[in-house]
Amino acid sequence: MYIGVDLGGTNIAAGVVDEAGKILAEGSVPTGAERPYQEIIKDMADLCKEITKKAGLEISDIRAIGIGSPGTIDNENGVVVYSNNIKMEHAPIAAELQKYINVPVNMENDANAAAMGEYVVNGGDVDSFIFITLGTGVGGGIVLNKKIYRGFNCAGAELGHITLIHNGQPCTCGNNGCWEAYASVTALIRQTKEAIEKNPDSLMAKLAEKEGKVSGRTAFDAAKQGDAAAQAVVDQYIEYVADGLLSIVNIFQPEKLVIGGGISKEGDYLLNPIREYIKKYDYNKYMPRVDISIATLFNDAGIIGAALAAKQ
Amino acid sequence: MYIGVDLGGTNIAAGVVDEAGKILAEGSVPTGAERPYQEIIKDMADLCKEITKKAGLEISDIRAIGIGSPGTIDNENGVVVYSNNIKMEHAPIAAELQKYINVPVNMENDANAAAMGEYVVNGGDVDSFIFITLGTGVGGGIVLNKKIYRGFNCAGAELGHITLIHNGQPCTCGNNGCWEAYASVTALIRQTKEAIEKNPDSLMAKLAEKEGKVSGRTAFDAAKQGDAAAQAVVDQYIEYVADGLLSIVNIFQPEKLVIGGGISKEGDYLLNPIREYIKKYDYNKYMPRVDISIATLFNDAGIIGAALAAKQ
Repeated sequence: MYIGVDLGGTNIAAGVVDEAGKILAEGSVPTGAERPYQEIIKDMADLCKEITKKAGLEISDIRAIGIGSPGTIDNENGVVVYSNNIKMEHAPIAAELQKYINVPVNMENDANAAAMGEYVVNGGDVDSFIFITLGTGVGGGIVLNKKIYRGFNCAGAELGHITLIHNGQPCTCGNNGCWEAYASVTALIRQTKEAIEKNPDSLMAKLAEKEGKVSGRTAFDAAKQGDAAAQAVVDQYIEYVADGLLSIVNIFQPEKLVIGGGISKEGDYLLNPIREYIKKYDYNKYMPRVDISIATLFNDAGIIGAALAAKQ
Repeated sequence: MYIGVDLGGTNIAAGVVDEAGKILAEGSVPTGAERPYQEIIKDMADLCKEITKKAGLEISDIRAIGIGSPGTIDNENGVVVYSNNIKMEHAPIAAELQKYINVPVNMENDANAAAMGEYVVNGGDVDSFIFITLGTGVGGGIVLNKKIYRGFNCAGAELGHITLIHNGQPCTCGNNGCWEAYASVTALIRQTKEAIEKNPDSLMAKLAEKEGKVSGRTAFDAAKQGDAAAQAVVDQYIEYVADGLLSIVNIFQPEKLVIGGGISKEGDYLLNPIREYIKKYDYNKYMPRVDISIATLFNDAGIIGAALAAKQ
């Protein structure tokens, strides 16, 4: 048995996970991200003990704990080198947790952990697997030969920060034109707002007014109801998503590519035009093609992936 | 001992290569690319025998032959699936060569083979290594854990076909906006010609007139002599190169990144602004940084890399 912990900016979620990636018991507590890391980790340890009990197990049954955390992670030493989200700098999380629970602890970047979770459950044991999340940002993870690919410095797989339009929209990372600046939910909301300003009488504008805000669903919902202005936003957004995926396909030619995050709940409505785009522009015209699908684990991916990365 | 063969559109070059990547004897013959593949491979076999003799060896001393070829290569079966350059389709090259020389034969895409050559000679045994060629096109190869990364279908590592500007310049691959359409020598020549039209009195225009053509060196040469219009071309070109490299760095965070191809002969004049750009925009701000350098093998990389990939 393993424990997987998803250390988020708002909550710490954790689960006891078996070898096959099944969650046996889970729970969560508020992160209280503004506190010193020692206090956060104390709560994390209590949560781990609680869910172990809930699963009918003892801590001695737990072979390892895996933690997925936002930010730059020193995987080798179990340190959060820097995280903007939870305000940590050079925080030795693994060692701190081991003060309370004496089992091996593995730390991963949260997107890498989620990729591992999707891989184990949906990857079908392939040798090359890419996971992309379309959320507040665009994140991703690379699983090659069944292992998370991290780069030599553990800072790799920042798939949202490949260029989509050189010198384009400003990105939160300080660069311009990153894929994330066009394909994240944040970007979709910006694109929707711009289109509403130009089309104040559109259904999209009315939906936004009714809801009191523009969300990542506004344009998709209006487009499905036949709004042409919304359809234009959706078409353009999906093309941005697909063109970034194309770069990743031309680099990796992965056997499987899985798309997760909030927007992935649009399902085939998102997936079909992406598949068509990749089919049309893929540099590979003669060999078997990448299999593209939608993630199925959603929020559990982080817990399961963190646990199974610790298994390694 | 191994033999490495660089099957080019114009010449077949081959060398006897030792375990450490040193060429002991080499030679070349015209490809005659318009001929049936059987005739081309007959000449290749004769060349292999000739250089083996030249190295003072027998064919029984050769443990394997590696061939680097342009196009889509089925590495597992030793087949050129499709090559535009040498007009082959589903050509079983490995089996054909073995009719004449009965040793194991390994086939690689030529850019992958060159990457392997640079890796062995300049890679310093790192676990993550990327090689980029700035030539007629932009090619590349990925060496992870000392092995060529090919993707599940052997069609990966098409690093020139990541997007630099969504819906930008047309690319030879049928897509628009690929990095290759901005960072290849072909693209640099296009950019230089456009600048000459706008600046007919520039030194760059005079150099082109004197040489009777615009080459990949025209803008670089004029810029070094203080021509402002040429400097603008060079600055913009290098920024295109650097931004594509940045995408690759943010994905792989490779320990070493080596730049080859014709343009790489500009050395530090090219390398210094690239290093500055990557330093400034690299998503990784807290962990050790990628080491970027210029290739040293040039034309021999293909022969050495093909031989050493066969060793695997």
